[in-house]
Amino acid sequence: MNEITATGRGLFITLEGGEGAGKTTQLAFIRDWFEHRGHTVQVTRQPGGTPLSERIRELLLDPAQGDMTPLAELLLLFADRAQFLADVVRPALARGEVVLCDRFTDSTRAYQGGGRGMAADTIETLARLVHGDVEPDLTLLLDLPVETGMARAGARGEADRMESAGMAFHEAVRRAYRDLAKGEPERVKLIDASASAAEVSRAINEILEQIHV
Amino acid sequence: MNEITATGRGLFITLEGGEGAGKTTQLAFIRDWFEHRGHTVQVTRQPGGTPLSERIRELLLDPAQGDMTPLAELLLLFADRAQFLADVVRPALARGEVVLCDRFTDSTRAYQGGGRGMAADTIETLARLVHGDVEPDLTLLLDLPVETGMARAGARGEADRMESAGMAFHEAVRRAYRDLAKGEPERVKLIDASASAAEVSRAINEILEQIHV
Ligand SMILES: Nc1ncnc2c1ncn2[C@@H]1O[C@H](COP(=O)(O)OP(=O)(O)O)[C@@H](O)[C@H]1O
Ligand SMILES: Nc1ncnc2c1ncn2[C@@H]1O[C@H](COP(=O)(O)OP(=O)(O)O)[C@@H](O)[C@H]1O
Ligand SMILES: [Mg+2]
Ligand SMILES: [Mg+2]
Repeated sequence: MNEITATGRGLFITLEGGEGAGKTTQLAFIRDWFEHRGHTVQVTRQPGGTPLSERIRELLLDPAQGDMTPLAELLLLFADRAQFLADVVRPALARGEVVLCDRFTDSTRAYQGGGRGMAADTIETLARLVHGDVEPDLTLLLDLPVETGMARAGARGEADRMESAGMAFHEAVRRAYRDLAKGEPERVKLIDASASAAEVSRAINEILEQIHV
Repeated sequence: MNEITATGRGLFITLEGGEGAGKTTQLAFIRDWFEHRGHTVQVTRQPGGTPLSERIRELLLDPAQGDMTPLAELLLLFADRAQFLADVVRPALARGEVVLCDRFTDSTRAYQGGGRGMAADTIETLARLVHGDVEPDLTLLLDLPVETGMARAGARGEADRMESAGMAFHEAVRRAYRDLAKGEPERVKLIDASASAAEVSRAINEILEQIHV
């Protein structure tokens, strides 16, 4: 699978999926997998990952900003991403490291595109502008029924502004994610995340075994 | 000058120019001018003008964010603007009001384009995306030598992140502003702002007299 190491240096892997899918849980296992093989790993997340990003993230998840327009939300996400790429992703890839990122532009496609109905054109225009040169080498999409994910995430405490959007919203997000996997099967790997954490980790390891690093 | 009332309802006037040019000072006079003629006036500013915008403004002007990438800065400005248009400008224009705005997208063209060297293409792509439907009916560009503006602004206290950029930056901003006035002479009116506040106000009033409202 040479496509996966297309950047030629470093490896950019993103974790995607709805709330409670197990992204944060699996990131820890994936980090171990690479570290055991002698790689330096950067674990990070979007939105977030830089001081500026953390402040933008506060704005995005603040329930008090409930009237934020979808376009303002989209532009904030990409502002965050522009800084994140400059400060975290590009330098780590240039050093030959593995960057593991909890959410990236596929989340934007699924949440702002599928969920909020922003035009795909608008999202792709911004994606090209902000990271035309940096695409994930591999995206692990943790897929599971919305209710299952909600039940898992619910156990975590109070819902943030994204989590408290309705069921129809989260169903649309899931559909958009699944369409992305269909559209780019080489990059986006669909994984059944309703299994136990150990089983999901095994499925992910099978995919990782096939990467030449 | 029918072009000026091209929106058909309401009137969107922006004030532009470097630091210390007299924008805030003149806005107060212009507000009076319209109120004396029975118009409802919204005085506002960019970046700023909504609760979200004020929080973005804090980020933009915070000297601690000195390493912000030009692209992240640009996207923040347009996120701000998207919300501002939705919450302030479009509703006021729809009610037939006069919106007076201290800075708008011409500031982005001058500061991020002329000053920071962001590609004009990138800025225009974002401008079309965010306010293809809302352009100022009239832009008053207060032009004066950089040193004069700096001396006036300096008297105001500690410099923010924009004001503390070097002289070459502010000269480039001024050049970009003047080019905008040359390129769109019907919309962008160049005004000599080195005169006294009363004289500048008279020059502005002459322009306003020609608007059919
Ligand atoms: N495969 C799994 N089966 C059951 N519970 C899980 C599984 N993976 C994660 N969890 C639990 O579900 C919750 C959400 O997992 P998390 O990794 O935080 O998801 P995400 O980061 O995708 O929102 C956590 O409490 C976690 O311990
Ligand atoms: N025409 C003028 N001549 C001299 N000083 C002026 C003039 N217009 C404004 N000022 C003063 O210069 C400073 C900057 O003016 P201000 O209106 O705040 O500029 P801006 O909003 O464009 O930065 C203020 O102290 C103001 O009183
Ligand atoms: Mg998580
Ligand atoms: Mg001012």
